[in-house]
Amino acid sequence: MSFSITVLGSSAAVPTKKRWLSSQVLACEQSLFLIDCGEGAQYRMQQFDIKRHRIQHIFISHLHGDHFFGLVGLLNSLNLNQREVSMHIYAPEPLKNYLEHTFLLSETRLFYPLIFHDLQPIENQLIFENESMTVHSLPLIHSIPTFGFIFREKQKKRNIRHDFVETFHPDFDTIKNIKNGADFVTNDGKIIQNQLITTSSGQPHSYAYFADTQINLNYQPFLSNIDILYHEATFSDAETDLAEQRGHSTARQAATLAKAAHVKKLLLGHISSRFIDDESILEQEAQSIFPDSELVEDGRIYHTANLYSPLNKK
Amino acid sequence: MSFSITVLGSSAAVPTKKRWLSSQVLACEQSLFLIDCGEGAQYRMQQFDIKRHRIQHIFISHLHGDHFFGLVGLLNSLNLNQREVSMHIYAPEPLKNYLEHTFLLSETRLFYPLIFHDLQPIENQLIFENESMTVHSLPLIHSIPTFGFIFREKQKKRNIRHDFVETFHPDFDTIKNIKNGADFVTNDGKIIQNQLITTSSGQPHSYAYFADTQINLNYQPFLSNIDILYHEATFSDAETDLAEQRGHSTARQAATLAKAAHVKKLLLGHISSRFIDDESILEQEAQSIFPDSELVEDGRIYHTANLYSPLNKK
Repeated sequence: MSFSITVLGSSAAVPTKKRWLSSQVLACEQSLFLIDCGEGAQYRMQQFDIKRHRIQHIFISHLHGDHFFGLVGLLNSLNLNQREVSMHIYAPEPLKNYLEHTFLLSETRLFYPLIFHDLQPIENQLIFENESMTVHSLPLIHSIPTFGFIFREKQKKRNIRHDFVETFHPDFDTIKNIKNGADFVTNDGKIIQNQLITTSSGQPHSYAYFADTQINLNYQPFLSNIDILYHEATFSDAETDLAEQRGHSTARQAATLAKAAHVKKLLLGHISSRFIDDESILEQEAQSIFPDSELVEDGRIYHTANLYSPLNKK
Repeated sequence: MSFSITVLGSSAAVPTKKRWLSSQVLACEQSLFLIDCGEGAQYRMQQFDIKRHRIQHIFISHLHGDHFFGLVGLLNSLNLNQREVSMHIYAPEPLKNYLEHTFLLSETRLFYPLIFHDLQPIENQLIFENESMTVHSLPLIHSIPTFGFIFREKQKKRNIRHDFVETFHPDFDTIKNIKNGADFVTNDGKIIQNQLITTSSGQPHSYAYFADTQINLNYQPFLSNIDILYHEATFSDAETDLAEQRGHSTARQAATLAKAAHVKKLLLGHISSRFIDDESILEQEAQSIFPDSELVEDGRIYHTANLYSPLNKK
């Protein structure tokens, strides 16, 4: 699958045996993107057979320890494994100084370039783009500066129909133009419309990562056409006041945003260890508002393509 | 058992699926002592059912990341679990500033006192003592300031013989004095020697942790009467030059020290991931010098008492 999310950790604040600290890997085409890096992320990558050397971009939502204490260990291990390729880090600005301090202290000299991109408190800022994807950041409401990340696959070029190729034997440049949407002109000057000789490559996929944050329905416009929203759901209805005091959300609140934004699926994450014996209340409260809500699971791979499969329709 | 070591991690520099990064828990009576704290130590404690809240003393050998990157996460989790009891940290001095910086950055306010003890480059310095144990530190030869730790149980008081108690019904103070070695004086002034009315409580147990270090036979005097020596064995004979260049040891060198110091058992640790497919060469090379050498295993508990069991004799 070309667009998927593997959850490495989804516990709030302290790890449990079942849920480690916040970290995820998004795969898009051949690229891997790391989102947050709680302690132990590098162990989880080993456990789940994720090739960490393929990560070139790391997005850190905020500087609470449970979201970044695994970063120095990961960067250190990549260094010891002779990495030479640049690593880009998108994070709140103070992280840069922390990394420099830590590597100075541990006498670590990185042999690969570490390129730091400060996140700015600007809505829907484009922070990364390549040929197949964009990433936008968004300031969230939490107890310290925190950012959400929105990953959107670009619309892929159209596929050329085999019967057209077999009939007209177009050259390389013509194929390129048709994939980009051009019509075809036959040798005798007749125009064949693009739609007749191509098929759609399908809907581009998308993912939004919102942790940690208070509920805020003003995020809604930035979530248009999102396939999967990962939203923190640290608390249940019973702790609604506590959630607000601590800059967190309840599962129901996460579902309210998911419903308003018409996302296809809501993954509930950043689960408090207070639910260690029974987390089902969170899923129930969310599903009462938005049926396509689901408690995220460490180690599971979420494929956006499944949301478009006829088998998945309810 | 009253004196045991649980290995949480034993890989050099980078973790493998089998070996995590350096960390161990020593149990002596009711106290737990943490030795080094590589990334993931708090997960290993969960996995191996070690009650982390019982740790009150942490010993950090040196400031290479694989020996302390798990410390901030552990201290943070203890804080979130409402710890109030002091935590003592024995480490090279720059760690204090690093912890302060990290907690400032992550806006972490510890609710328990963190008491920092700088390690000094002094041979065999007493750094901790309670009613049942002493800990001494020792500067080791490595690429940065590094310390070995020597844990020695104190001689326990002698056990009073039941037949003596049943015959003479001694009072509380008399029992205390006899346990401390006093002779007993009968009502008619007759002296009964202590050895006749008490039995030995056995040999006090001991453990030495030497990682990371170059081989150095001058450590030998500090290892007298040591039960278990944990010594790094990062390399095999084939990498003897590399070991020296990098301030590390080979398994054979570790065994040479163990033999010279007459320890009861050598645990080979800090194993390089280059041996991931077959580590047996390290054990073979060490055993050719010192037969009681053994590759350490993550998750295993090493009881010093087993060394005194008749079943264990070869």
